[in-house]
Amino acid sequence: MAFIQTDTFTLRGYECDASGRMSLPALMNLMQESANRNAIDYGIGIADLGQKGFGWMLMRFCLRMHQYPRYGDTIQLMTYPTTVEKYFIHRDFRVLAEDGTLLADAGSIWLVFSIEKRSMVPLPDFIRQLSPPTNVDPLPTLPLKPDFQIVPFIPSETRPVEVGWLSIDQNQHVNNVAYVQWLIESINTDTLQTREIAEIDLVYRTESHWHDWLDVQTATETADMLLHRIVQTESGKEVILARSQWREN
Amino acid sequence: MAFIQTDTFTLRGYECDASGRMSLPALMNLMQESANRNAIDYGIGIADLGQKGFGWMLMRFCLRMHQYPRYGDTIQLMTYPTTVEKYFIHRDFRVLAEDGTLLADAGSIWLVFSIEKRSMVPLPDFIRQLSPPTNVDPLPTLPLKPDFQIVPFIPSETRPVEVGWLSIDQNQHVNNVAYVQWLIESINTDTLQTREIAEIDLVYRTESHWHDWLDVQTATETADMLLHRIVQTESGKEVILARSQWREN
Repeated sequence: MAFIQTDTFTLRGYECDASGRMSLPALMNLMQESANRNAIDYGIGIADLGQKGFGWMLMRFCLRMHQYPRYGDTIQLMTYPTTVEKYFIHRDFRVLAEDGTLLADAGSIWLVFSIEKRSMVPLPDFIRQLSPPTNVDPLPTLPLKPDFQIVPFIPSETRPVEVGWLSIDQNQHVNNVAYVQWLIESINTDTLQTREIAEIDLVYRTESHWHDWLDVQTATETADMLLHRIVQTESGKEVILARSQWREN
Repeated sequence: MAFIQTDTFTLRGYECDASGRMSLPALMNLMQESANRNAIDYGIGIADLGQKGFGWMLMRFCLRMHQYPRYGDTIQLMTYPTTVEKYFIHRDFRVLAEDGTLLADAGSIWLVFSIEKRSMVPLPDFIRQLSPPTNVDPLPTLPLKPDFQIVPFIPSETRPVEVGWLSIDQNQHVNNVAYVQWLIESINTDTLQTREIAEIDLVYRTESHWHDWLDVQTATETADMLLHRIVQTESGKEVILARSQWREN
């Protein structure tokens, strides 16, 4: 059976930033919540996988903001799986205003890891067999390895961050949204005050843990495009790579 | 007319910490949201005050956690003003489980500042005249200056924090909950993993702003009691003082 998750959220004050627009971390938190609920309907929730010795890992996430909702606005958030492959499951998100205007959409790619081996495994049969809904129009498939992953990265700014208690989830990993908070907080003052993110494309490379020290790096690619990288300070291992696209607000 | 605000919230995944319990910052965010809604009903919302050249400032907040809700639990949050004085308005919060169990309660004291003068003013008449509900049982009145404000404070740990974009609100001040996040993240690993906060009592002393550097200090008062202080790094000015009380979890 196929399930489309549809949740309605009315924006709370703390979900908006200093400019009054919904913050991307707040939106990503809601997307994560709706995805969890959808996965539970499919019998592939965090607890279902945990019982079998598996866990979900987000690998790719690309969010496009067409129009930012504001405090008090009611949004409808829809999410559903679109494609199931040997190693990857693709999931789309759409965010609509009350009048049906498309505010945002996002594509994502998830993989499954074995808790015991701490490594990626082919999707177990109970996941591979699921039926994505057929009455939806999937977003273009995200490339596993986007082009910004291979361009040279020369950081113009590096900020150290220590992973705190409130950034880790029940798996004892840093949650996916915390990285986006750090990456946004490393962007320069003028950009944050006068511009807004039109698109953010993320590649999750490796996990990190409580008390890890991370370097949050930013580089300018073009006038409207920033590159971001978070690396483990000690090992230099890449944790996340991202490209953000900006427009006047 | 008197108003009691009652909101029902079902806990989302990101509102719980690594131990699976609701995080205090998440609960305080919801309390703030319900207080805003209640203030709007009374005609004393942030926008109502802003139009008249005033703003709200939280001065005291004391939260007692009787039992922590967990992911998926539905809680009922009630808030209402209890007393209106020349300079201060008192507001209580109660959090109930679905079966009516009292999970948490909190008392708070708020003052009004003049945006132009950047200083405290007596409550304007349109606030002083409001009618708190009479059919509630107010919590004991919070002391304006609790005893831990006058004991010597010798920090055993100091952590620097820079105020980031996502910690400021639409008034361009650090939001009240961000301080509690920093204070929790400064607590030692063992305490965070094996214990839980039974009570946290906060004194807000002065505001801080985007890009300010703050020192987050912790001191041990007794085996079950920590003292916290956040000061502006440059001026040494006190931003917040707090005492937290802990129990085994």
